[in-house]
Amino acid sequence: MNRFVLDPRLEKDSELVTTLGLCQLRLLKDSRWPWLMLIPQRADKTEIFQLTPLDQTMLTFEINLVAEALKTVTKARKINVGALGNIVSQLHVHIVARHEGDPNWPGPIWGHGSATPWADDAKQNFLTNLNEALAS
Amino acid sequence: MNRFVLDPRLEKDSELVTTLGLCQLRLLKDSRWPWLMLIPQRADKTEIFQLTPLDQTMLTFEINLVAEALKTVTKARKINVGALGNIVSQLHVHIVARHEGDPNWPGPIWGHGSATPWADDAKQNFLTNLNEALAS
Repeated sequence: MNRFVLDPRLEKDSELVTTLGLCQLRLLKDSRWPWLMLIPQRADKTEIFQLTPLDQTMLTFEINLVAEALKTVTKARKINVGALGNIVSQLHVHIVARHEGDPNWPGPIWGHGSATPWADDAKQNFLTNLNEALAS
Repeated sequence: MNRFVLDPRLEKDSELVTTLGLCQLRLLKDSRWPWLMLIPQRADKTEIFQLTPLDQTMLTFEINLVAEALKTVTKARKINVGALGNIVSQLHVHIVARHEGDPNWPGPIWGHGSATPWADDAKQNFLTNLNEALAS
């Protein structure tokens, strides 16, 4: 059985926020949207249905925990959740806060334009609020 | 408590395949991709985390049941799963079979071009295979 190793492209495009029971929670290096990613720490998985039933349930719990915290912190109009993986096949789930009029609204975020780096202050502020919401 | 009523835009853009324990399973009227949708039959829900924990688990089960059947039937390279809802807020989950070189590959399907209707024969063939895979 192989050991889980984070895909280098996912690693390069994001930074670790925290580790949950199953997943790494990571923040994308793109401030256009508050954009998080969950990566189950399981080797050789590309589709959710390849996880064990327990891991599927854990993933659902963690998606909803993060989605609700993100909604609280951002007051987003809509949370977008997506598992695509057409480019990087290692299983990962996007959780994105959307506001009316944000880049490409109401279309999807994937494949749209180029990343805008976070300002350090804004990022620290966002992560502080997110961690508080996750813990509450 | 309100009764579940399918959003008229979701109804217009898709047709019923079958009803599972929680969700309506529907086929989008767009043959560019094998494109299914699950809609939990619960009133006034827009986010997965608003469902009860049991309904969340049911939805996960049904997403994975359908995703695996769709993979079997289409031999897709990747299944894309997404809950966006920026346009139609009633909670619905897209499950889409993607092949290398399909329209907008490897980008997302949402917001790309215009729908191509299914030919009747191809649709019936697809639905027969899908229902067999769901039952197996």
